[in-house]
Amino acid sequence: MKVLTDETTAGVRRREIVVDDEGRHVPGALWTPLEHAEPLPLVLIGHGASGSKDQDYVVSLARSLAADFGIAAAAIDGPVHGSRRADGGLDPQQSFLEFATMWSSDSDMTDRMTADWKVTLDELSALDEISGPVGYWGLSMGTIIGLPFVAADPRISVAVLGLMGMTGPTSARIGQDAREITCPVLFLVQWSDELFPRTTAFELFDLLGSSDKSLHANPGTHGEVPNHEFAASTRYLARRLSAGQSAAT
Amino acid sequence: MKVLTDETTAGVRRREIVVDDEGRHVPGALWTPLEHAEPLPLVLIGHGASGSKDQDYVVSLARSLAADFGIAAAAIDGPVHGSRRADGGLDPQQSFLEFATMWSSDSDMTDRMTADWKVTLDELSALDEISGPVGYWGLSMGTIIGLPFVAADPRISVAVLGLMGMTGPTSARIGQDAREITCPVLFLVQWSDELFPRTTAFELFDLLGSSDKSLHANPGTHGEVPNHEFAASTRYLARRLSAGQSAAT
Repeated sequence: MKVLTDETTAGVRRREIVVDDEGRHVPGALWTPLEHAEPLPLVLIGHGASGSKDQDYVVSLARSLAADFGIAAAAIDGPVHGSRRADGGLDPQQSFLEFATMWSSDSDMTDRMTADWKVTLDELSALDEISGPVGYWGLSMGTIIGLPFVAADPRISVAVLGLMGMTGPTSARIGQDAREITCPVLFLVQWSDELFPRTTAFELFDLLGSSDKSLHANPGTHGEVPNHEFAASTRYLARRLSAGQSAAT
Repeated sequence: MKVLTDETTAGVRRREIVVDDEGRHVPGALWTPLEHAEPLPLVLIGHGASGSKDQDYVVSLARSLAADFGIAAAAIDGPVHGSRRADGGLDPQQSFLEFATMWSSDSDMTDRMTADWKVTLDELSALDEISGPVGYWGLSMGTIIGLPFVAADPRISVAVLGLMGMTGPTSARIGQDAREITCPVLFLVQWSDELFPRTTAFELFDLLGSSDKSLHANPGTHGEVPNHEFAASTRYLARRLSAGQSAAT
């Protein structure tokens, strides 16, 4: 793992990283609280289609996990997104369309992303400052890619998923993976989701193998997840990853 | 309002009360933190069929609101329940069956309970120590009765409802009342609810007029609401009723 930049703002250190491993090239970022005593738990954040590891809500979640809960956070760029692109992802619509095409036509895409996440987690876990339980947070494309990863990697002990359902090119595979998941899951649904109708989201939630799972639904379209659910999702992760910490009440 | 008993345990004061007003006779209980500076916000708790104002989860919610969040809590016995009965509600199954019969045959039941809640709230609001916003918490029978009350009383500024759906004797009326509700609502659903199938609960959530509403669904049957949702519901109320309090983070 190479560290490309290393900057600290308002008590949170951000390192831009890249993992190169057996032909894999994974651009990512790592946020940690500047001051911390114990080795840090870690949350991996998968962004949605058209976004990147640097988009507003990813940065906001990561900084909140670090600053408010003393948890490290890392994000990587999705396929055909962000720093994986020659243009750096400056045209979100273009990334979205290329991803939609890839999702429809390239059945190995989620396997490749699972491998990217695994090697990234290997590298992050090797850092002295990171230790203990690992969570995953990802909605929409972050679930299309993240759900198979959570199913495949026993190191993930809690996940926030959602804005996705039993529809689309990989739904049969997603349904199969969902049954394999046994860790606690918070699953978010938007009541008027125009991309993944709520009935398809309910189907996917139903298939999750976890005995400890909760579905949170709120009014609005795919892109209108209310701020209080972002906040609730960090508290959910913090409670599961560091139950003893007072900040996680 | 008469105070029948007044006892303090572990920092929480409990008064058994009865409100007599124009032929109404409403047995209830009030919990307040023993030590508090400001006038207290209030949460009204409606219990489920077969229970009472004194059942475990009502007492637990009330004591948590008082002790953990500095919020007063009050409960009243539902129709044919608790101290409204000659036998004091010693046979939960009998209360349940009589309520089911009343729900099916007596279309004024929810209006009478709304009047009981209103007069109880009048009396509680007259106490020096109680002031400010009022919330409502009630699942199952606590929603059958409480949803019409929340719709009818503008003093209620936030509600936790659920374990009920667009089915049963009063569903047309409930649907109408749901449209009238505009305050924030947290609505709980049990995924395998055998009394109110989740699809009927989704229908009712859909009808709620509130723009700020959230649905939380968890695995299990009607009676298996997980403890973490009880805890989340008190935090939800506390945040809305006393946003400035540090305990409500």
